[in-house]
Amino acid sequence: MGTCARSRRRIGRRTIGMSMTTAVILLGLLAGLLLGGCEAPAAIADETTATAPRPQFEITTSDAFDPATLAAYDGDHTEIYELIDRRQGEHLENLQRWLRQPSISAQDVGIDDMAELVRSDLEAIGFSETQIVPTSGHPGVFGHYDAGAEKTLLVYMMYDVQPVNPEDWASPPFEARLIERPLLGKVLMARGATNQKGPQRALLNAVAAVIDATGTLPINLMVLAEGEEELGSPNYPELVDHFEERLASADGAFFPFNSQSPSGRIQMNLGVKGIVYFEMEARGGDWGGPKMAEIHGSYKSLVDSPTLRLVQAIASMTSPDGNTILIDGYYDDIRPPTEEEMRLINGVAQNYDGAAIRRLLRVERFVDGLEGTDAIMRHLYDVTLNVDGIWSGYTGEGVKTILPHLATAKVDSRLPPGIDPDEALARVRSHLDEHGFEDVVLRKLSGYPAAQSSVESPLVQAAIRVFNKWGKVEEVWPRLAGSAPFYQFTERLNLPLVFNGLGHGSGAHAPNEYMLIEPERGSGAAGLAEIEKSYVDLLYALAE
Amino acid sequence: MGTCARSRRRIGRRTIGMSMTTAVILLGLLAGLLLGGCEAPAAIADETTATAPRPQFEITTSDAFDPATLAAYDGDHTEIYELIDRRQGEHLENLQRWLRQPSISAQDVGIDDMAELVRSDLEAIGFSETQIVPTSGHPGVFGHYDAGAEKTLLVYMMYDVQPVNPEDWASPPFEARLIERPLLGKVLMARGATNQKGPQRALLNAVAAVIDATGTLPINLMVLAEGEEELGSPNYPELVDHFEERLASADGAFFPFNSQSPSGRIQMNLGVKGIVYFEMEARGGDWGGPKMAEIHGSYKSLVDSPTLRLVQAIASMTSPDGNTILIDGYYDDIRPPTEEEMRLINGVAQNYDGAAIRRLLRVERFVDGLEGTDAIMRHLYDVTLNVDGIWSGYTGEGVKTILPHLATAKVDSRLPPGIDPDEALARVRSHLDEHGFEDVVLRKLSGYPAAQSSVESPLVQAAIRVFNKWGKVEEVWPRLAGSAPFYQFTERLNLPLVFNGLGHGSGAHAPNEYMLIEPERGSGAAGLAEIEKSYVDLLYALAE
Repeated sequence: MGTCARSRRRIGRRTIGMSMTTAVILLGLLAGLLLGGCEAPAAIADETTATAPRPQFEITTSDAFDPATLAAYDGDHTEIYELIDRRQGEHLENLQRWLRQPSISAQDVGIDDMAELVRSDLEAIGFSETQIVPTSGHPGVFGHYDAGAEKTLLVYMMYDVQPVNPEDWASPPFEARLIERPLLGKVLMARGATNQKGPQRALLNAVAAVIDATGTLPINLMVLAEGEEELGSPNYPELVDHFEERLASADGAFFPFNSQSPSGRIQMNLGVKGIVYFEMEARGGDWGGPKMAEIHGSYKSLVDSPTLRLVQAIASMTSPDGNTILIDGYYDDIRPPTEEEMRLINGVAQNYDGAAIRRLLRVERFVDGLEGTDAIMRHLYDVTLNVDGIWSGYTGEGVKTILPHLATAKVDSRLPPGIDPDEALARVRSHLDEHGFEDVVLRKLSGYPAAQSSVESPLVQAAIRVFNKWGKVEEVWPRLAGSAPFYQFTERLNLPLVFNGLGHGSGAHAPNEYMLIEPERGSGAAGLAEIEKSYVDLLYALAE
Repeated sequence: MGTCARSRRRIGRRTIGMSMTTAVILLGLLAGLLLGGCEAPAAIADETTATAPRPQFEITTSDAFDPATLAAYDGDHTEIYELIDRRQGEHLENLQRWLRQPSISAQDVGIDDMAELVRSDLEAIGFSETQIVPTSGHPGVFGHYDAGAEKTLLVYMMYDVQPVNPEDWASPPFEARLIERPLLGKVLMARGATNQKGPQRALLNAVAAVIDATGTLPINLMVLAEGEEELGSPNYPELVDHFEERLASADGAFFPFNSQSPSGRIQMNLGVKGIVYFEMEARGGDWGGPKMAEIHGSYKSLVDSPTLRLVQAIASMTSPDGNTILIDGYYDDIRPPTEEEMRLINGVAQNYDGAAIRRLLRVERFVDGLEGTDAIMRHLYDVTLNVDGIWSGYTGEGVKTILPHLATAKVDSRLPPGIDPDEALARVRSHLDEHGFEDVVLRKLSGYPAAQSSVESPLVQAAIRVFNKWGKVEEVWPRLAGSAPFYQFTERLNLPLVFNGLGHGSGAHAPNEYMLIEPERGSGAAGLAEIEKSYVDLLYALAE
């Protein structure tokens, strides 16, 4: 099936929203394909939108950001690196301890034990303040290591994992065995290995090594972990509530993430789009149509069709090609590209290969024949309206002649910076009302704004320099077109967020999830020791 | 559930089409509700269609057809009636013999045995020519009784029945027990009791009684029975092929039907609408969109949506209210009401109760606020476009963000006389092509034109007179708005068709199907003996 299969899950009475890591991992994989052939940006005439209200942003600079111009981090922490090398056996066991503790949020399996494992590990490492933080759902974990330093880093963690079908796994998902993978090396195979316990515990290994080697940390650390990421982080805002002022005093937020390709490439993404996800429903009522149940189809002559009503309501929102939104003001609030973002786009446009992306997606052409910079701009700055699903009436084989009483669609709208999810939904509501679809119900299922960090922020600069030391940052994108609720960090706490890092893993939300621990000779991706050393460097680079 | 639940079934490689009796039975039940309060036809302004191409037919006569003006049939066949009365035990056993032989076409249960039972019964009664007629599906049965008479009646029969869930039945569905029903009388409960073995075998009882009492029949009889009615009669045209010239020489066609309400009312319908039923499908292809599988929803910015394409294609075919078809020429070929039909409509309009129909359908208002004659005219002469079902993408609970590669809808169009199903579908195709939806696939699942008999035809006149003798024909409608492939008789063979009759039954396609055999004192519907006597009268009335 598709690249984005997501199963529905519930916790308590909440319907799940988005999962941060899903979007990031899957879109990261796709984005990796962006590197490839070189195609000159073409000036394609945008016929279908000539009279449309979609803004046409211009790139007004020829400057291009090149991450290679940021010198590799050159701090020397040999003593700590050597401690990390000596402790590799213990460090691997730490990962295995976390991975052997199931913590399936959707099924409430092992959640409390895992939360306590996180808390007690923080305490053992030397965090002076640790606590389990109750929420409306699964508890969070807070930890504070006050080094009396000038700078503070907020570490976002998730301690929950996806469910498993053990029979699909080559190695039992909660045994965390070390397995040889041809062409890659030794990998740790377990649910949560890469999403997200592996890199998170690796960071704590690094932190412990710094403390043990030097007696303290070069920066202060705050950890705020949740146990509901795989449920769409419904209560993370609540966790932030508890510590908002302290969290906002940090200098940046970091989400430990294995984002190297097997060959070692790192593509950085400095933001995500927001989203508003809603259901539209038409049902017979006072306006007409069958109110209680389907009726015989021959009555269409006298009875309105809720299905056609939904179809017309949806159709009224877009141009006939489905690609331009006709809702009044829907494009108005898009924040234009900043000069910084233009430079980033000029940078990535040099290697942009639309044909490679289309091959991966199995798509023959992009809308309006977009290529090159035009495609990048549309992808990053367009607000979209997409029907994720629609259903009504008889959907089996053959003939059944009914006039259904109910029709429903799932719709998502991806929101570039500047567009608020509730305002977007209000515009949809107004549009429907103004077009005579007052009775079409909207049900919001999820919504949050975009998140954006600046490449100029000290944390991002430090990250690029560190990544350039251990690997090579090939591209820095202003954002992913996918969505994750990172606005909690970037917009609410006003912190730059880095959610890329050394390390390679795969199989998130799938069988045989793994994290690379010991790469084969010649493999470009970092192993556990190198990852941990890069984390050490990141702490010091941020401290500078 | 709705009033028109139909399950999908296949036979051989054919997908099923429509079932004659389903439409007739269910719509007959609804139509029965038309009798009730008296409401003056209102001249409602038809705002939404003011500029639409829908023709506005005028009733240009004030004459109203009143079936009561046709004198009850007064032929006296006492000798035959008495034979029928004496033979009631044997006649009931004949019905039971047929009902105890399962003949479930969808499951190929008992089909060949039932076909032979029909054939051998015809032979035993005295039909000189009887044969099992192979088809591409289940066999047909042909029988000819040549009385050397001037007139010939073609009897349409179906010997197959719907499947059963025995656990849902108060009495085993193939035991055909006689059961006492409060307020009604003794009923025969079995699958097929009323749909359609009961009335059909009752007709043969009557025929046998006439032959035994008089040595012959007053008219010639041809029987052409099929075993696939519940599959949509896919091979009935093939059966007609075999005997077309002989069948066309008949003076009318008769479908034995229990169409009395429990109180004894008979509403006659002289025709049905045709139908074309098709699927519309949009799928990613050379035009754009994902070709092979769903992709991540964030790619809507660059990738066309087949789902929106289908929605836009459907929306382009109707006015925003979904009630006027915008396909070029789609209304052009509707045959205007004949003067005869106007008189019939004037007749039924006097008792038309739109509010009662709306209560039954659970509908608050009819389209355009139609009432009275306007509603009747729209119902009988409108060509409709109705979405029976639509589906695409994720239809489960909660959030899943995908851009689906495939979207499908089931659409039916009810066709008043004058509109050919294939021409209608060709207009849909042209419309889609002209509006840029060349890639939207149309798959025809079923299609046939309307059927219409004249109230002036000798067979219909004879039927009304006979029904007026044994009961009372309250209303004669030009047609049902539902569909059945009766065009085989009316249009292809050019025969008037009567598909109403004395007798009451219920539960077609449902558990506890029954036919009333011995009404309680005071019950208005006919019992088996009266039904058989009315059939005797019909043969003689047609002979006159």
